[in-house]
Amino acid sequence: MEIPKDHPRYKSLSTRERLAELAKDGIVTITGLIAHGRGEAFDYLLGERTIPQAREAERVAVSYLLEARNPVISVNGNVAALCPEEVIRLSEAVPAKIEVNLFHRTSERIEKVVRHMERAGAGRVLGRNPDSILPGISSDRAMCTREGIYTADVVLVPLEDGDRAEALVAMGKVVLAVDLNPLSRTSKAATVTIVDEVTRAIPEMTLMVDGLRDDPEKRKELTSSFDNKENLRRTIRHICRYIESQGDKDKE
Amino acid sequence: MEIPKDHPRYKSLSTRERLAELAKDGIVTITGLIAHGRGEAFDYLLGERTIPQAREAERVAVSYLLEARNPVISVNGNVAALCPEEVIRLSEAVPAKIEVNLFHRTSERIEKVVRHMERAGAGRVLGRNPDSILPGISSDRAMCTREGIYTADVVLVPLEDGDRAEALVAMGKVVLAVDLNPLSRTSKAATVTIVDEVTRAIPEMTLMVDGLRDDPEKRKELTSSFDNKENLRRTIRHICRYIESQGDKDKE
Repeated sequence: MEIPKDHPRYKSLSTRERLAELAKDGIVTITGLIAHGRGEAFDYLLGERTIPQAREAERVAVSYLLEARNPVISVNGNVAALCPEEVIRLSEAVPAKIEVNLFHRTSERIEKVVRHMERAGAGRVLGRNPDSILPGISSDRAMCTREGIYTADVVLVPLEDGDRAEALVAMGKVVLAVDLNPLSRTSKAATVTIVDEVTRAIPEMTLMVDGLRDDPEKRKELTSSFDNKENLRRTIRHICRYIESQGDKDKE
Repeated sequence: MEIPKDHPRYKSLSTRERLAELAKDGIVTITGLIAHGRGEAFDYLLGERTIPQAREAERVAVSYLLEARNPVISVNGNVAALCPEEVIRLSEAVPAKIEVNLFHRTSERIEKVVRHMERAGAGRVLGRNPDSILPGISSDRAMCTREGIYTADVVLVPLEDGDRAEALVAMGKVVLAVDLNPLSRTSKAATVTIVDEVTRAIPEMTLMVDGLRDDPEKRKELTSSFDNKENLRRTIRHICRYIESQGDKDKE
């Protein structure tokens, strides 16, 4: 299907086509397609842009990544499909390790997603040979690597499910979530929740790395003053003001 | 995959499994899976229940169906997948015709969806042999039957796309939409917008048929006093109150 570049929904339609192709390849699952739809709806409520509350969370998250001893970016099928190059650039800028971690895990699918990241230019990608188990999760999703997620002090989890986010927090890790639903269990559990679309959030964060790298004072200030629950409440208020204004637009 | 019946997300997880199966059969498309995800997100914002504004719209919609000379229920892949029996029961109660009308139209897929409805117990299903074209739509989606949608005075369109909803309104038809996004083009274009999940909305409407069948006064009162734009604004306010209360729940 050819989508004209001037179509008002060009970006979202071409993203859907990309996901559809990667679904045929087995990189994206059916559950992943439905999850993408949920994301589309929540992004619509943000006006499909990075709101100030998200930008603030992104700066705090970058500060945590730069402060970390062993920062890891967890990549699932949808993240690999949507923004592999962007994840790689962030991982190189910080630097942080990349680990593939799937909700619907089979060794074939892990191999496919790792290879997809490698083809996109990733150096080392963890996840092929998990040797550790996250406590408190009763499925294959618990599998991870000691070198990566298991011993990470800070984990960036774009598009994570609630069980895993909660398990990572319970292990004492700093969890940085990218999640468009400000009411999700992941959003509530995370140390820092970035309510933003992942293909906008990751490049934004990469741009922030340079400014924060040589400014430990600023990083400390950002991480110590940030209140995630309050930021989520302000995000919800922002959404409400936006959708009410959209509804009023149509007043006769 | 087996989902335990006591799982808090049992309904939505088993619905996803059903859609996944029908996606393999070609009844549901990849775009349909993503659209289902969008619906899940919006339903979450309603608290996954029929809100009073939706119930009011459902009563008005049933009144229009009972007043109609040639009422038609338009069925696409997702509707056929989610609630075939429920659609058939409503079509028998009114009575109204059923016409299959697909966004991603191929004659094979039309045949599959029509057969799916027939297997679910539908008597006559229109759509196999379209002989008319809706003006103002430049794709195969414009194809419909003269006996059904083309000459219908009232069309119930669950999960419709914006272009078709607008085209049906432009033809002077009464358009009854079931759409979980109160800001969508379909929601704005329709005569009556039911912001409710389709598997809840259709059975609700069927239950309302008996009470309204012998009460033409009540039907007239309902259809003449209904203000769709105002009802959508009240729906948005309801959503905002709900999500703000959910956000406040987590106040420390």
